[in-house]
Amino acid sequence: MELLGLMPGVGEKTAERLAYHILRLSKEEALALSDAIREVKEKVKQCSVCNQFAEVDPCPICADPRRDRAVICVVEDARDVVPIEQSGSYRGLYHVLCGRLAPLEGMEPEDLTVDGLLRRVQSGDVQEVILATNPDMEGEATALYVRQALEGLPAKVTRLARGVPSGSQLDYANPAILADALEGRREMKK
Amino acid sequence: MELLGLMPGVGEKTAERLAYHILRLSKEEALALSDAIREVKEKVKQCSVCNQFAEVDPCPICADPRRDRAVICVVEDARDVVPIEQSGSYRGLYHVLCGRLAPLEGMEPEDLTVDGLLRRVQSGDVQEVILATNPDMEGEATALYVRQALEGLPAKVTRLARGVPSGSQLDYANPAILADALEGRREMKK
Repeated sequence: MELLGLMPGVGEKTAERLAYHILRLSKEEALALSDAIREVKEKVKQCSVCNQFAEVDPCPICADPRRDRAVICVVEDARDVVPIEQSGSYRGLYHVLCGRLAPLEGMEPEDLTVDGLLRRVQSGDVQEVILATNPDMEGEATALYVRQALEGLPAKVTRLARGVPSGSQLDYANPAILADALEGRREMKK
Repeated sequence: MELLGLMPGVGEKTAERLAYHILRLSKEEALALSDAIREVKEKVKQCSVCNQFAEVDPCPICADPRRDRAVICVVEDARDVVPIEQSGSYRGLYHVLCGRLAPLEGMEPEDLTVDGLLRRVQSGDVQEVILATNPDMEGEATALYVRQALEGLPAKVTRLARGVPSGSQLDYANPAILADALEGRREMKK
């Protein structure tokens, strides 16, 4: 229960429920779970290029010759790669920062993998760096910090568009969303 | 109950609950509600310029000399004006279409107030028309229709930015939202 309770979103009560669930598992099921946890730690490493989790190094995306090496999409967390891949709109590479600036939580600039990003941009033929940190306060601060760190390098730096989310209704949008959508409005050609 | 049940989102059960609520009101409270309903129909009209609901014609926004007359923001519904005003980012005028293209629901182009919009753009010094219809399928179709109707007129036509909503987290964004955010990404200056 103590160890289960260390997982995010698992409080004392949930830890207890999970522990009893494990007690009720058959021996085979329990061993399968135990093995899966050991195996994931043995097999899955961080890609030495982009810091994404993968069983091989470099990761399948960094190693894929069909990906566009001129664009790097910078995300806070390895998890953020999944929805961007699912969008089907991106064919470049990634760089996982492994966190975001949050001084109150003890996340300082030196905890992010910005040095690795700078090395990649300096050494390669990178033409664009897309800052895809979250559209919240810490994500914006992180984007600004990375933007400044990239200053003087030849790559263009862009930021994901902020605006009204596809499929939503205007009368549920909050003032900040609408201010972004108005500020970022784009000309509509015929 | 029958009449209450005609209101949007009010089913049979809710209508019953509301009816019993009215029965339990004091005479003064019931009459206040009754009067308010009569009064709103007597006093509130549609603005002859923008179709917004108001007690005066033209409405306070159309009549306000401090509003920028060179920009018209086109919305589907009178309700959509509220969140845009609350964003504090818009100082132009509005045009309420009074609906959106939805052939399956019987909403055809002639049901929208596009003629009135064309007259306003033709007669005034309108430099920009912002299409702020909803970022969903019908809203996009409506924007496209209005865009075509405005063809040949001198005003620039823009559309609200679509992208990741301010304050959200990337890993909750769906593929369509991320595709928009990537496609609309903007250069980030120092």
